Amino acid sequence: MVKYIGTRELQSFLATRPLEQVIEGLSAYIKADYLRWQQFDKTARLASHSAVGVIELMPISDGRLYSFKYVNGHPRNTSHGLLTVTAFGVLADVGSGYPRLLSELTLTTALRTAATSVLAARHMARPDSRVMALIGNGAQSEFQAIAFHRLLGITELRVFDVDAEATDKLCRNLHAYPQLRIVRAGSVAAAVRGADIVTTVTADKRRAVIVTADMVEAGMHLNAVGGDCPGKTELQREVLSKARVVVEFEPQSRIEGELQQMPAEFAVTELWQVLAGAASGRAGDEEVTVFDSVGFALQDFSALRYLDEQLDGRFTQQIDLVPDLADPKDLYGAAVDGAPTETLTAALNLLHA
Amino acid sequence: MVKYIGTRELQSFLATRPLEQVIEGLSAYIKADYLRWQQFDKTARLASHSAVGVIELMPISDGRLYSFKYVNGHPRNTSHGLLTVTAFGVLADVGSGYPRLLSELTLTTALRTAATSVLAARHMARPDSRVMALIGNGAQSEFQAIAFHRLLGITELRVFDVDAEATDKLCRNLHAYPQLRIVRAGSVAAAVRGADIVTTVTADKRRAVIVTADMVEAGMHLNAVGGDCPGKTELQREVLSKARVVVEFEPQSRIEGELQQMPAEFAVTELWQVLAGAASGRAGDEEVTVFDSVGFALQDFSALRYLDEQLDGRFTQQIDLVPDLADPKDLYGAAVDGAPTETLTAALNLLHA
Repeated sequence: MVKYIGTRELQSFLATRPLEQVIEGLSAYIKADYLRWQQFDKTARLASHSAVGVIELMPISDGRLYSFKYVNGHPRNTSHGLLTVTAFGVLADVGSGYPRLLSELTLTTALRTAATSVLAARHMARPDSRVMALIGNGAQSEFQAIAFHRLLGITELRVFDVDAEATDKLCRNLHAYPQLRIVRAGSVAAAVRGADIVTTVTADKRRAVIVTADMVEAGMHLNAVGGDCPGKTELQREVLSKARVVVEFEPQSRIEGELQQMPAEFAVTELWQVLAGAASGRAGDEEVTVFDSVGFALQDFSALRYLDEQLDGRFTQQIDLVPDLADPKDLYGAAVDGAPTETLTAALNLLHA
Repeated sequence: MVKYIGTRELQSFLATRPLEQVIEGLSAYIKADYLRWQQFDKTARLASHSAVGVIELMPISDGRLYSFKYVNGHPRNTSHGLLTVTAFGVLADVGSGYPRLLSELTLTTALRTAATSVLAARHMARPDSRVMALIGNGAQSEFQAIAFHRLLGITELRVFDVDAEATDKLCRNLHAYPQLRIVRAGSVAAAVRGADIVTTVTADKRRAVIVTADMVEAGMHLNAVGGDCPGKTELQREVLSKARVVVEFEPQSRIEGELQQMPAEFAVTELWQVLAGAASGRAGDEEVTVFDSVGFALQDFSALRYLDEQLDGRFTQQIDLVPDLADPKDLYGAAVDGAPTETLTAALNLLHA
């Protein structure tokens, strides 16, 4: 039997504690895994592109556990009442090859992305950051808002989306956080002006120029979450050229991140180096920093580890995704288990002969 | 909600019809998909190797449907009461990126492998084939035996395994097929001598030499199923050099199949060419033919299509692997659904502040 965490199970778990506590827990797991970066067998994700979206598989292993995530990205889905991004994943034992946990990762991806954003910002944003611009007010926006408010001390949020209803929904949901001042901005430029942190989390699968170089002020930290596919970017090229850029896994980010706009020789730092103290996330209060986040398999590995260890039997089910055999060489026995007995099978065979 | 077929559901389905009928049905789906080979976006599978086994992801898409299989191969598992191979897979809609079916594929892999073997043998074995040697009597052996007996007219089976208990189990299970004469052979050579078809389906993850060139007789068809990983082969190199070799997907077979022993210029034919009549599977009664089968993602795509279309509601469940939202941009609403109300959340936040 394989442990199963569906939408209901995760909802039940989330109902028992504040969201930021889960995000903080995920941050700790992600950090612990990034600090042992060299132990992982890493590969860029395997993408299958179509005219309307992408389906990706994201495998990774540390030699003891293996995980993969299935995730899609279909920006036009929302016009049909469907999510832009859905995801699920599996944690497996490398020693036996058996899956041990199958989990929903749609909600979890939003949580782990916010957890990673906070982790990077702790090392890259100015410590006195209080104002964040949040560009893109779709499915992931509340998670980013709550994480930065509760875990990083953001007290003012400037929100903007081309879809005013998305912003309405974000503002409505954030009513539960009365200590967070929300300002609806009339444009990206208005939202960004004077902000300490700029989080972009838009869904368009195209080369968008959402934040231009003239908007960027000294000392800003840009948390660029939405540019995560070949041909999908959010920042003007010139924003990167004058900033310190940190990525998750360079080979993947060169293809998928904001980084795809830059020449191969443009230097970047990997997040694990910053977390390990091997590289600095920020040089002084004037530097512009960019976390060019595309989402890497390691974060999902960490999230699956978190779910596997933190959700006890109250929040999990068991499913028979793989057979449990008395004799492992007798797979046929399982195929005909509950089927007609041997004699009946023989009779059936005679009938069908 | 996503359709789910676990071990129990598949067992219930298999209990309602003879196994060969399911294998024949799978053959038809596999053939139909191989006949539209050019429509598929194909890639070699993504393997994660460890000292004790391998975990693989096998994605494929025809632009309308996408599928992947997760499959492991751990030869030493049986000594711990576990299966050598377990598998599961997903069929998804390319248009939305949503998964539509999650299914067990452990039993199904054995069925679809036998279905593919029969499909190839129909074009490659001599039509008058009646005697088959079956080397390797583990988890997959009954499926091969039943498929070749019921669908290809094999009436005598010569069985051999280094593990006599595996052969005991095979013989016991095949009692249900009284029209199939079973001969226990004392060696591989004795099993192969005079056989029309030689099926090898062993599990060792190493360069084994199970069938040597001196055993091979004119007109034989070799159905080589077990050599399916880098460093895992079953046939002596010289068996291939004098035979017509058919593979599923050449780029993958060059790395994983018996073919890994041969130089890059050694010519092979792809199965789809034989099925489409673009290439011959056999030139006369004297030729030696080899189906160097490693298992390709397309067969699992076909198997998932079969399961999706042939198993009605009696044999499927629904699971909440992805959330179903009233407002697809309000993922946060799902995260806190069933959670404390806004007022309660605000109170909780104040408490935690």
